[in-house]
Amino acid sequence: MIEDYRKHPSLARVKVVLVETSHPGNIGAVARAMKNMGLSRLVLVNPREYPSHVASVRASGAADVLGEAEVVTHLDEALSDCQLVVGSSARMRKVSWPQLDVRQTASLAMETTLGDEHAQVAIVFGREDSGLSNAELDKCHYLAHIPTNPVYSSLNIAAAVQVFAYELLMATDIQSVHHAEGYRHQLASAQQLEGFYDHLYQALQDIAFLDPAKNARFMRRMRRLFNRSHLDVKEIDILRGVLTASQRQARQLNELTQSQK
Amino acid sequence: MIEDYRKHPSLARVKVVLVETSHPGNIGAVARAMKNMGLSRLVLVNPREYPSHVASVRASGAADVLGEAEVVTHLDEALSDCQLVVGSSARMRKVSWPQLDVRQTASLAMETTLGDEHAQVAIVFGREDSGLSNAELDKCHYLAHIPTNPVYSSLNIAAAVQVFAYELLMATDIQSVHHAEGYRHQLASAQQLEGFYDHLYQALQDIAFLDPAKNARFMRRMRRLFNRSHLDVKEIDILRGVLTASQRQARQLNELTQSQK
Repeated sequence: MIEDYRKHPSLARVKVVLVETSHPGNIGAVARAMKNMGLSRLVLVNPREYPSHVASVRASGAADVLGEAEVVTHLDEALSDCQLVVGSSARMRKVSWPQLDVRQTASLAMETTLGDEHAQVAIVFGREDSGLSNAELDKCHYLAHIPTNPVYSSLNIAAAVQVFAYELLMATDIQSVHHAEGYRHQLASAQQLEGFYDHLYQALQDIAFLDPAKNARFMRRMRRLFNRSHLDVKEIDILRGVLTASQRQARQLNELTQSQK
Repeated sequence: MIEDYRKHPSLARVKVVLVETSHPGNIGAVARAMKNMGLSRLVLVNPREYPSHVASVRASGAADVLGEAEVVTHLDEALSDCQLVVGSSARMRKVSWPQLDVRQTASLAMETTLGDEHAQVAIVFGREDSGLSNAELDKCHYLAHIPTNPVYSSLNIAAAVQVFAYELLMATDIQSVHHAEGYRHQLASAQQLEGFYDHLYQALQDIAFLDPAKNARFMRRMRRLFNRSHLDVKEIDILRGVLTASQRQARQLNELTQSQK
Protein backbone atom coordinates (compact mmCIF):
# COMPACT_ATOMS: atom_id res chain seq x y z
CA MET A 1 0.00 0.00 0.00
CA ILE A 2 1.62 3.25 -1.16
CA GLU A 3 0.88 6.23 1.08
CA ASP A 4 2.11 8.86 -1.35
CA TYR A 5 1.56 7.89 -4.97
CA ARG A 6 4.62 9.95 -5.94
CA LYS A 7 6.64 7.01 -4.58
CA HIS A 8 5.08 4.63 -7.12
CA PRO A 9 7.99 3.16 -9.11
CA SER A 10 6.47 4.17 -12.45
CA LEU A 11 4.93 7.53 -11.55
CA ALA A 12 8.19 8.59 -9.89
CA ARG A 13 9.95 8.28 -13.23
CA VAL A 14 7.58 10.39 -15.31
CA LYS A 15 8.65 13.99 -15.89
CA VAL A 16 6.34 16.79 -16.93
CA VAL A 17 8.32 19.18 -19.12
CA LEU A 18 6.88 22.64 -19.79
CA VAL A 19 8.48 24.56 -22.64
CA GLU A 20 8.56 28.38 -22.36
CA THR A 21 5.38 28.72 -20.35
CA SER A 22 4.22 32.35 -20.35
CA HIS A 23 1.86 32.49 -17.38
CA PRO A 24 3.23 31.57 -13.95
CA GLY A 25 -0.31 30.78 -12.81
CA ASN A 26 -0.33 27.92 -15.29
CA ILE A 27 2.92 26.55 -13.83
CA GLY A 28 1.33 26.55 -10.37
CA ALA A 29 -1.83 24.86 -11.64
CA VAL A 30 0.32 22.21 -13.37
CA ALA A 31 2.15 21.50 -10.10
CA ARG A 32 -1.17 21.06 -8.33
CA ALA A 33 -2.56 18.73 -11.03
CA MET A 34 0.65 16.69 -10.83
CA LYS A 35 0.68 16.26 -7.08
CA ASN A 36 -3.04 15.43 -7.07
CA MET A 37 -2.36 12.48 -9.38
CA GLY A 38 0.94 11.33 -7.90
CA LEU A 39 3.45 12.97 -10.25
CA SER A 40 6.38 14.90 -8.80
CA ARG A 41 9.01 15.70 -11.41
CA LEU A 42 8.45 19.08 -13.03
CA VAL A 43 10.97 20.54 -15.47
CA LEU A 44 10.63 24.11 -16.74
CA VAL A 45 12.39 25.04 -19.95
CA ASN A 46 12.90 28.82 -20.08
CA PRO A 47 9.79 29.84 -18.16
CA ARG A 48 8.99 33.51 -18.84
CA GLU A 49 8.33 34.43 -15.22
CA TYR A 50 9.65 32.14 -12.55
CA PRO A 51 9.91 31.81 -9.56
CA SER A 52 6.65 33.63 -9.10
CA HIS A 53 4.24 34.41 -6.31
CA VAL A 54 1.32 33.78 -8.68
CA ALA A 55 2.64 30.29 -9.42
CA SER A 56 2.92 29.52 -5.71
CA VAL A 57 -0.63 30.68 -5.00
CA ARG A 58 -2.09 28.58 -7.81
CA ALA A 59 0.00 25.56 -6.76
CA SER A 60 -1.94 25.62 -3.49
CA GLY A 61 -0.84 22.54 -1.53
CA ALA A 62 1.68 21.53 -4.18
CA ALA A 63 4.38 24.00 -3.16
CA ASP A 64 6.81 21.10 -2.77
CA VAL A 65 6.44 20.02 -6.41
CA LEU A 66 6.99 23.62 -7.45
CA GLY A 67 9.94 24.02 -5.07
CA GLU A 68 11.64 20.93 -6.48
CA ALA A 69 11.02 21.93 -10.10
CA GLU A 70 14.12 21.94 -12.26
CA VAL A 71 14.68 25.00 -14.45
CA VAL A 72 16.75 24.50 -17.60
CA THR A 73 17.55 26.57 -20.66
CA HIS A 74 17.36 23.89 -23.35
CA LEU A 75 14.81 21.15 -23.98
CA ASP A 76 17.72 18.75 -24.55
CA GLU A 77 18.75 19.07 -20.91
CA ALA A 78 15.27 17.99 -19.85
CA LEU A 79 15.21 14.98 -22.15
CA SER A 80 18.78 13.68 -22.09
CA ASP A 81 18.10 10.94 -19.51
CA CYS A 82 14.69 9.86 -20.91
CA GLN A 83 13.97 6.61 -22.79
CA LEU A 84 10.49 7.68 -23.85
CA VAL A 85 9.60 11.23 -24.89
CA VAL A 86 6.03 12.13 -25.78
CA GLY A 87 4.99 15.56 -27.00
CA SER A 88 1.49 16.76 -26.20
CA SER A 89 -0.51 18.28 -28.99
CA ALA A 90 -4.12 19.44 -29.02
CA ARG A 91 -4.47 18.94 -32.73
CA MET A 92 -3.60 16.06 -35.03
CA ARG A 93 -0.87 17.16 -37.39
CA LYS A 94 -0.81 15.87 -40.91
CA VAL A 95 2.76 14.75 -40.53
CA SER A 96 4.65 11.63 -39.91
CA TRP A 97 5.12 11.68 -36.14
CA PRO A 98 3.70 8.49 -34.69
CA GLN A 99 0.63 9.41 -32.73
CA LEU A 100 -0.91 8.15 -29.53
CA ASP A 101 -3.91 9.16 -27.53
CA VAL A 102 -3.50 9.93 -23.84
CA ARG A 103 -4.57 6.48 -22.68
CA GLN A 104 -2.08 4.82 -25.01
CA THR A 105 0.61 7.21 -23.80
CA ALA A 106 -0.07 6.22 -20.20
CA SER A 107 -0.02 2.55 -21.10
CA LEU A 108 3.26 2.96 -22.99
CA ALA A 109 4.79 4.91 -20.08
CA MET A 110 3.90 2.02 -17.75
CA GLU A 111 5.33 -0.57 -20.15
CA THR A 112 8.51 1.46 -20.51
CA THR A 113 9.08 1.92 -16.79
CA LEU A 114 8.11 -1.66 -15.96
CA GLY A 115 10.35 -3.07 -18.66
CA ASP A 116 13.47 -1.20 -17.51
CA GLU A 117 13.97 -0.16 -13.93
CA HIS A 118 16.09 2.82 -14.94
CA ALA A 119 13.86 4.08 -17.74
CA GLN A 120 12.54 7.62 -17.49
CA VAL A 121 9.64 9.13 -19.36
CA ALA A 122 9.03 12.75 -20.37
CA ILE A 123 5.72 14.25 -21.39
CA VAL A 124 6.42 17.58 -23.07
CA PHE A 125 3.96 20.48 -23.19
CA GLY A 126 4.48 23.49 -25.44
CA ARG A 127 3.80 27.21 -25.16
CA GLU A 128 0.28 28.37 -24.32
CA ASP A 129 -0.09 30.18 -27.64
CA SER A 130 1.97 28.25 -30.14
CA GLY A 131 2.64 24.78 -28.69
CA LEU A 132 5.82 22.98 -29.66
CA SER A 133 7.96 23.86 -32.67
CA ASN A 134 8.73 21.24 -35.30
CA ALA A 135 12.33 21.11 -34.08
CA GLU A 136 11.03 20.35 -30.59
CA LEU A 137 8.61 17.74 -31.92
CA ASP A 138 11.54 16.08 -33.68
CA LYS A 139 12.94 15.28 -30.25
CA CYS A 140 9.73 13.44 -29.31
CA HIS A 141 9.29 9.75 -30.02
CA TYR A 142 5.54 10.10 -30.16
CA LEU A 143 3.03 12.86 -30.39
CA ALA A 144 0.07 12.48 -28.03
CA HIS A 145 -3.29 13.89 -28.85
CA ILE A 146 -5.88 14.93 -26.28
CA PRO A 147 -9.30 14.60 -27.89
CA THR A 148 -11.11 17.93 -28.01
CA ASN A 149 -14.15 19.48 -29.59
CA PRO A 150 -13.01 20.69 -33.04
CA VAL A 151 -14.83 24.01 -32.55
CA TYR A 152 -12.75 24.76 -29.45
CA SER A 153 -9.62 22.70 -29.16
CA SER A 154 -7.50 25.19 -27.23
CA LEU A 155 -6.94 23.40 -23.95
CA ASN A 156 -5.48 25.18 -20.94
CA ILE A 157 -2.02 23.74 -20.26
CA ALA A 158 -2.87 22.72 -16.68
CA ALA A 159 -6.02 21.00 -18.00
CA ALA A 160 -3.87 19.11 -20.51
CA VAL A 161 -1.44 18.03 -17.78
CA GLN A 162 -4.44 17.05 -15.63
CA VAL A 163 -5.71 14.66 -18.31
CA PHE A 164 -2.29 13.05 -18.82
CA ALA A 165 -1.66 12.78 -15.08
CA TYR A 166 -5.10 11.22 -14.57
CA GLU A 167 -4.52 8.61 -17.29
CA LEU A 168 -1.05 7.85 -15.91
CA LEU A 169 -2.53 7.23 -12.47
CA MET A 170 -5.33 5.11 -13.96
CA ALA A 171 -2.73 3.06 -15.84
CA THR A 172 -0.87 2.11 -12.67
CA ASP A 173 -1.43 -1.04 -10.67
CA ILE A 174 -2.44 0.96 -7.58
CA GLN A 175 -5.47 -1.01 -6.47
CA SER A 176 -7.27 1.76 -4.62
CA VAL A 177 -7.32 3.80 -7.82
CA HIS A 178 -9.50 1.25 -9.51
CA HIS A 179 -11.52 0.19 -6.57
CA ALA A 180 -15.12 1.34 -6.83
CA GLU A 181 -17.60 -0.82 -5.02
CA GLY A 182 -21.26 -1.28 -5.72
CA TYR A 183 -21.19 -1.22 -9.48
CA ARG A 184 -18.61 -3.67 -10.70
CA HIS A 185 -17.13 -6.63 -8.95
CA GLN A 186 -13.71 -6.42 -7.46
CA LEU A 187 -10.94 -5.95 -9.99
CA ALA A 188 -8.90 -9.03 -10.70
CA SER A 189 -5.53 -9.26 -8.98
CA ALA A 190 -2.30 -9.62 -10.93
CA GLN A 191 -2.26 -13.30 -9.92
CA GLN A 192 -5.79 -13.86 -11.22
CA LEU A 193 -4.87 -12.13 -14.47
CA GLU A 194 -1.80 -14.35 -14.84
CA GLY A 195 -4.00 -17.38 -14.20
CA PHE A 196 -6.30 -16.23 -16.98
CA TYR A 197 -3.45 -15.61 -19.43
CA ASP A 198 -1.97 -19.06 -18.68
CA HIS A 199 -5.39 -20.62 -19.22
CA LEU A 200 -5.89 -18.67 -22.46
CA TYR A 201 -2.46 -19.74 -23.71
CA GLN A 202 -3.26 -23.40 -23.02
CA ALA A 203 -6.77 -23.24 -24.49
CA LEU A 204 -5.55 -21.59 -27.69
CA GLN A 205 -3.16 -24.49 -28.16
CA ASP A 206 -5.85 -27.06 -27.31
CA ILE A 207 -8.20 -25.71 -29.98
CA ALA A 208 -5.30 -25.73 -32.43
CA PHE A 209 -5.34 -21.99 -32.90
CA LEU A 210 -1.96 -20.83 -31.72
CA ASP A 211 0.97 -20.91 -34.10
CA PRO A 212 3.89 -21.81 -31.81
CA ALA A 213 6.20 -19.58 -33.83
CA LYS A 214 4.15 -16.51 -32.98
CA ASN A 215 3.33 -17.33 -29.38
CA ALA A 216 5.12 -14.55 -27.56
CA ARG A 217 3.99 -11.76 -29.81
CA PHE A 218 0.44 -13.06 -29.86
CA MET A 219 0.14 -13.34 -26.10
CA ARG A 220 1.59 -9.86 -25.65
CA ARG A 221 -1.17 -8.59 -27.91
CA MET A 222 -3.81 -10.46 -25.91
CA ARG A 223 -2.43 -8.99 -22.69
CA ARG A 224 -2.58 -5.50 -24.08
CA LEU A 225 -6.17 -6.04 -25.20
CA PHE A 226 -7.46 -7.47 -21.93
CA ASN A 227 -5.35 -5.24 -19.69
CA ARG A 228 -7.07 -2.24 -21.25
CA SER A 229 -10.38 -3.65 -20.00
CA HIS A 230 -9.38 -3.76 -16.33
CA LEU A 231 -11.13 -7.11 -15.91
CA ASP A 232 -13.00 -7.76 -12.71
CA VAL A 233 -13.05 -11.05 -10.82
CA LYS A 234 -16.43 -12.09 -12.19
CA GLU A 235 -15.35 -11.40 -15.76
CA ILE A 236 -12.24 -13.52 -15.30
CA ASP A 237 -14.49 -16.35 -14.09
CA ILE A 238 -16.70 -16.02 -17.14
CA LEU A 239 -13.86 -15.86 -19.64
CA ARG A 240 -12.22 -18.90 -18.04
CA GLY A 241 -15.58 -20.67 -18.24
CA VAL A 242 -15.59 -20.07 -21.99
CA LEU A 243 -12.02 -21.38 -22.23
CA THR A 244 -12.95 -24.50 -20.26
CA ALA A 245 -15.91 -25.16 -22.57
CA SER A 246 -13.71 -24.90 -25.66
CA GLN A 247 -11.11 -27.18 -24.06
CA ARG A 248 -13.81 -29.74 -23.24
CA GLN A 249 -14.78 -29.90 -26.91
CA ALA A 250 -11.17 -30.18 -27.95
CA ARG A 251 -10.65 -33.07 -25.52
CA GLN A 252 -13.77 -34.89 -26.71
CA LEU A 253 -12.70 -34.43 -30.31
CA ASN A 254 -9.29 -35.74 -29.45
CA GLU A 255 -10.69 -38.80 -27.68
CA LEU A 256 -13.04 -39.60 -30.54
CA THR A 257 -10.27 -39.20 -33.08
CA GLN A 258 -8.02 -41.48 -31.04
CA SER A 259 -10.71 -44.13 -30.63
CA GLN A 260 -11.26 -44.25 -34.38
CA LYS A 261 -7.66 -45.03 -35.12
CA MET B 1 -19.13 13.48 -38.83
CA ILE B 2 -20.05 15.88 -36.01
CA GLU B 3 -18.54 19.35 -36.43
CA ASP B 4 -19.29 20.51 -32.90
CA TYR B 5 -19.20 17.71 -30.35
CA ARG B 6 -21.79 19.55 -28.27
CA LYS B 7 -24.31 18.29 -30.83
CA HIS B 8 -23.49 14.66 -30.03
CA PRO B 9 -26.76 13.04 -28.91
CA SER B 10 -25.27 11.80 -25.64
CA LEU B 11 -22.98 14.70 -24.74
CA ALA B 12 -25.81 17.16 -25.38
CA ARG B 13 -27.79 15.54 -22.59
CA VAL B 14 -25.15 15.66 -19.87
CA LYS B 15 -25.45 18.55 -17.42
CA VAL B 16 -22.65 19.80 -15.23
CA VAL B 17 -24.18 21.05 -11.98
CA LEU B 18 -22.06 23.25 -9.70
CA VAL B 19 -23.37 23.68 -6.16
CA GLU B 20 -22.59 26.99 -4.40
CA THR B 21 -19.30 27.62 -6.14
CA SER B 22 -17.37 30.34 -4.32
CA HIS B 23 -14.86 31.49 -6.91
CA PRO B 24 -16.18 32.85 -10.21
CA GLY B 25 -12.81 32.02 -11.83
CA ASN B 26 -13.59 28.37 -11.22
CA ILE B 27 -16.95 28.71 -12.97
CA GLY B 28 -15.19 30.18 -16.00
CA ALA B 29 -12.57 27.43 -16.01
CA VAL B 30 -15.36 24.82 -15.80
CA ALA B 31 -17.10 26.35 -18.84
CA ARG B 32 -13.85 26.17 -20.77
CA ALA B 33 -13.19 22.54 -19.79
CA MET B 34 -16.75 21.68 -20.83
CA LYS B 35 -16.64 23.29 -24.25
CA ASN B 36 -13.19 21.80 -24.93
CA MET B 37 -14.64 18.32 -24.46
CA GLY B 38 -18.03 18.86 -26.11
CA LEU B 39 -20.26 19.53 -23.10
CA SER B 40 -22.58 22.52 -23.12
CA ARG B 41 -25.12 22.37 -20.31
CA LEU B 42 -23.94 24.19 -17.21
CA VAL B 43 -26.24 24.67 -14.21
CA LEU B 44 -25.18 26.87 -11.29
CA VAL B 45 -26.91 26.33 -7.95
CA ASN B 46 -26.57 29.49 -5.85
CA PRO B 47 -23.21 30.68 -7.14
CA ARG B 48 -21.67 33.16 -4.69
CA GLU B 49 -20.59 35.68 -7.31
CA TYR B 50 -22.20 35.46 -10.71
CA PRO B 51 -22.35 36.83 -13.39
CA SER B 52 -18.75 37.84 -13.06
CA HIS B 53 -16.03 39.41 -15.15
CA VAL B 54 -13.48 37.01 -13.65
CA ALA B 55 -15.60 34.05 -14.77
CA SER B 56 -15.79 35.41 -18.32
CA VAL B 57 -12.03 35.96 -18.53
CA ARG B 58 -11.26 32.42 -17.33
CA ALA B 59 -13.91 30.95 -19.68
CA SER B 60 -11.79 32.31 -22.55
CA GLY B 61 -13.43 31.04 -25.78
CA ALA B 62 -16.27 29.36 -23.88
CA ALA B 63 -18.28 32.54 -23.29
CA ASP B 64 -21.26 30.88 -24.97
CA VAL B 65 -21.37 28.01 -22.47
CA LEU B 66 -21.16 30.55 -19.66
CA GLY B 67 -23.81 32.76 -21.27
CA GLU B 68 -26.23 29.84 -21.60
CA ALA B 69 -25.64 28.63 -18.05
CA GLU B 70 -28.78 28.17 -16.01
CA VAL B 71 -28.79 29.68 -12.52
CA VAL B 72 -31.12 28.07 -9.96
CA THR B 73 -31.62 28.36 -6.22
CA HIS B 74 -32.18 24.70 -5.35
CA LEU B 75 -30.36 21.55 -6.41
CA ASP B 76 -33.77 19.93 -7.01
CA GLU B 77 -34.45 22.31 -9.88
CA ALA B 78 -31.25 21.23 -11.56
CA LEU B 79 -31.99 17.53 -11.19
CA SER B 80 -35.76 17.27 -11.70
CA ASP B 81 -35.53 16.20 -15.37
CA CYS B 82 -32.55 13.86 -14.94
CA GLN B 83 -32.68 10.05 -15.10
CA LEU B 84 -29.13 9.61 -13.86
CA VAL B 85 -27.55 11.78 -11.17
CA VAL B 86 -23.93 11.26 -10.17
CA GLY B 87 -22.24 13.22 -7.40
CA SER B 88 -18.53 13.87 -7.68
CA SER B 89 -16.41 13.22 -4.64
CA ALA B 90 -12.65 13.38 -4.26
CA ARG B 91 -12.63 10.97 -1.38
CA MET B 92 -14.27 7.59 -0.89
CA ARG B 93 -16.83 7.85 1.87
CA LYS B 94 -17.38 4.98 4.21
CA VAL B 95 -21.08 5.03 3.53
CA SER B 96 -23.58 3.17 1.47
CA TRP B 97 -23.79 5.27 -1.68
CA PRO B 98 -23.05 3.11 -4.68
CA GLN B 99 -19.71 4.21 -6.04
CA LEU B 100 -18.28 4.51 -9.52
CA ASP B 101 -15.02 5.72 -10.89
CA VAL B 102 -15.01 8.39 -13.58
CA ARG B 103 -14.66 5.92 -16.44
CA GLN B 104 -17.58 3.88 -15.17
CA THR B 105 -19.61 7.08 -14.78
CA ALA B 106 -18.94 7.99 -18.39
CA SER B 107 -19.85 4.51 -19.55
CA LEU B 108 -23.07 4.59 -17.54
CA ALA B 109 -23.95 8.04 -18.88
CA MET B 110 -23.59 6.70 -22.41
CA GLU B 111 -25.69 3.61 -21.66
CA THR B 112 -28.37 5.81 -20.08
CA THR B 113 -28.58 8.26 -22.97
CA LEU B 114 -28.37 5.53 -25.61
CA GLY B 115 -31.05 3.46 -23.91
CA ASP B 116 -33.59 6.28 -23.70
CA GLU B 117 -33.63 9.12 -26.17
CA HIS B 118 -35.08 11.51 -23.62
CA ALA B 119 -32.82 10.59 -20.71
CA GLN B 120 -30.72 13.32 -19.16
CA VAL B 121 -27.69 12.95 -16.96
CA ALA B 122 -26.38 15.26 -14.24
CA ILE B 123 -22.87 15.23 -12.80
CA VAL B 124 -22.93 17.24 -9.58
CA PHE B 125 -19.90 19.05 -8.12
CA GLY B 126 -19.90 20.46 -4.61
CA ARG B 127 -18.40 23.51 -2.95
CA GLU B 128 -14.66 24.14 -3.27
CA ASP B 129 -14.10 23.83 0.47
CA SER B 130 -16.71 21.37 1.72
CA GLY B 131 -18.02 19.41 -1.28
CA LEU B 132 -21.58 18.11 -1.21
CA SER B 133 -23.66 17.74 1.96
CA ASN B 134 -25.13 14.38 2.88
CA ALA B 135 -28.61 15.72 1.99
CA GLU B 136 -27.27 16.61 -1.46
CA LEU B 137 -25.57 13.25 -1.84
CA ASP B 138 -28.91 11.60 -1.04
CA LYS B 139 -30.23 13.04 -4.29
CA CYS B 140 -27.45 11.31 -6.25
CA HIS B 141 -27.89 7.80 -7.61
CA TYR B 142 -24.17 7.21 -7.55
CA LEU B 143 -21.14 8.79 -6.07
CA ALA B 144 -18.20 9.08 -8.45
CA HIS B 145 -14.68 9.07 -7.24
CA ILE B 146 -11.75 10.69 -9.03
CA PRO B 147 -8.60 8.83 -8.07
CA THR B 148 -6.12 11.10 -6.33
CA ASN B 149 -2.91 10.87 -4.38
CA PRO B 150 -3.97 10.31 -0.74
CA VAL B 151 -1.45 12.91 0.47
CA TYR B 152 -3.10 15.62 -1.63
CA SER B 153 -6.58 14.75 -2.77
CA SER B 154 -7.99 18.27 -2.96
CA LEU B 155 -8.71 18.63 -6.65
CA ASN B 156 -9.54 22.01 -8.17
CA ILE B 157 -13.18 21.94 -9.30
CA ALA B 158 -12.35 22.79 -12.92
CA ALA B 159 -9.75 20.00 -12.90
CA ALA B 160 -12.43 17.60 -11.63
CA VAL B 161 -14.85 18.68 -14.37
CA GLN B 162 -12.01 18.32 -16.88
CA VAL B 163 -11.47 14.69 -15.94
CA PHE B 164 -15.19 13.84 -16.13
CA ALA B 165 -15.62 15.71 -19.42
CA TYR B 166 -12.58 13.94 -20.88
CA GLU B 167 -13.90 10.50 -19.90
CA LEU B 168 -17.34 11.35 -21.26
CA LEU B 169 -15.83 12.33 -24.59
CA MET B 170 -13.66 9.18 -24.61
CA ALA B 171 -16.78 7.08 -23.93
CA THR B 172 -18.60 8.37 -27.01
CA ASP B 173 -18.64 6.71 -30.40
CA ILE B 174 -17.01 9.75 -32.03
CA GLN B 175 -14.42 8.06 -34.21
CA SER B 176 -11.95 10.91 -34.43
CA VAL B 177 -11.65 10.90 -30.64
CA HIS B 178 -10.20 7.43 -30.67
CA HIS B 179 -8.25 7.65 -33.85
CA ALA B 180 -4.52 7.66 -33.27
CA GLU B 181 -2.45 6.38 -36.14
CA GLY B 182 0.93 4.78 -36.04
CA TYR B 183 0.65 2.89 -32.79
CA ARG B 184 -2.53 0.87 -32.94
CA HIS B 185 -4.53 -0.16 -35.93
CA GLN B 186 -7.69 1.64 -36.83
CA LEU B 187 -10.45 1.26 -34.27
CA ALA B 188 -13.20 -1.14 -35.21
CA SER B 189 -16.39 0.41 -36.55
CA ALA B 190 -19.75 -0.22 -34.89
CA GLN B 191 -20.56 -2.63 -37.72
CA GLN B 192 -17.34 -4.58 -37.19
CA LEU B 193 -18.06 -4.75 -33.48
CA GLU B 194 -21.58 -6.05 -34.15
CA GLY B 195 -20.10 -8.64 -36.50
CA PHE B 196 -17.78 -9.76 -33.71
CA TYR B 197 -20.59 -9.95 -31.12
CA ASP B 198 -22.74 -11.99 -33.53
CA HIS B 199 -19.82 -14.31 -34.16
CA LEU B 200 -19.10 -14.61 -30.43
CA TYR B 201 -22.76 -15.38 -29.73
CA GLN B 202 -22.78 -18.14 -32.36
CA ALA B 203 -19.43 -19.61 -31.29
CA LEU B 204 -20.46 -19.74 -27.63
CA GLN B 205 -23.47 -21.80 -28.67
CA ASP B 206 -21.39 -24.00 -30.96
CA ILE B 207 -18.98 -24.90 -28.16
CA ALA B 208 -21.98 -25.61 -25.93
CA PHE B 209 -21.11 -22.86 -23.49
CA LEU B 210 -24.04 -20.49 -23.60
CA ASP B 211 -27.05 -21.18 -21.43
CA PRO B 212 -29.95 -20.02 -23.63
CA ALA B 213 -31.85 -18.77 -20.58
CA LYS B 214 -29.11 -16.29 -19.79
CA ASN B 215 -28.22 -15.18 -23.30
CA ALA B 216 -29.23 -11.53 -23.19
CA ARG B 217 -27.65 -10.76 -19.86
CA PHE B 218 -24.51 -12.66 -20.76
CA MET B 219 -24.02 -10.92 -24.07
CA ARG B 220 -24.59 -7.53 -22.45
CA ARG B 221 -21.78 -8.36 -20.05
CA MET B 222 -19.50 -9.39 -22.92
CA ARG B 223 -20.29 -6.14 -24.71
CA ARG B 224 -19.43 -4.12 -21.65
CA LEU B 225 -16.15 -5.96 -21.26
CA PHE B 226 -14.99 -5.65 -24.86
CA ASN B 227 -16.37 -2.14 -25.38
CA ARG B 228 -14.12 -0.98 -22.58
CA SER B 229 -11.15 -2.19 -24.62
CA HIS B 230 -11.89 -0.05 -27.68
CA LEU B 231 -10.92 -2.92 -29.97
CA ASP B 232 -9.05 -2.13 -33.12
CA VAL B 233 -9.63 -3.77 -36.51
CA LYS B 234 -6.66 -6.12 -36.16
CA GLU B 235 -7.80 -7.26 -32.72
CA ILE B 236 -11.28 -8.02 -34.03
CA ASP B 237 -9.65 -10.14 -36.75
CA ILE B 238 -7.63 -12.04 -34.16
CA LEU B 239 -10.54 -12.62 -31.80
CA ARG B 240 -12.70 -13.83 -34.68
CA GLY B 241 -9.87 -16.13 -35.71
CA VAL B 242 -9.98 -17.68 -32.25
CA LEU B 243 -13.76 -18.07 -32.52
CA THR B 244 -13.43 -19.71 -35.93
CA ALA B 245 -10.86 -22.17 -34.57
CA SER B 246 -13.16 -23.13 -31.71
CA GLN B 247 -16.08 -23.53 -34.13
CA ARG B 248 -13.98 -25.74 -36.38
CA GLN B 249 -13.32 -28.11 -33.47
CA ALA B 250 -16.99 -28.09 -32.52
CA ARG B 251 -17.97 -28.95 -36.09
CA GLN B 252 -15.44 -31.77 -36.32
CA LEU B 253 -16.63 -33.14 -33.00
CA ASN B 254 -20.20 -32.94 -34.21
CA GLU B 255 -19.40 -34.75 -37.47
CA LEU B 256 -17.49 -37.48 -35.68
CA THR B 257 -20.28 -37.97 -33.17
CA GLN B 258 -22.84 -38.15 -35.98
CA SER B 259 -20.77 -40.63 -37.98
CA GLN B 260 -20.54 -42.95 -34.98
CA LYS B 261 -24.28 -43.20 -34.58
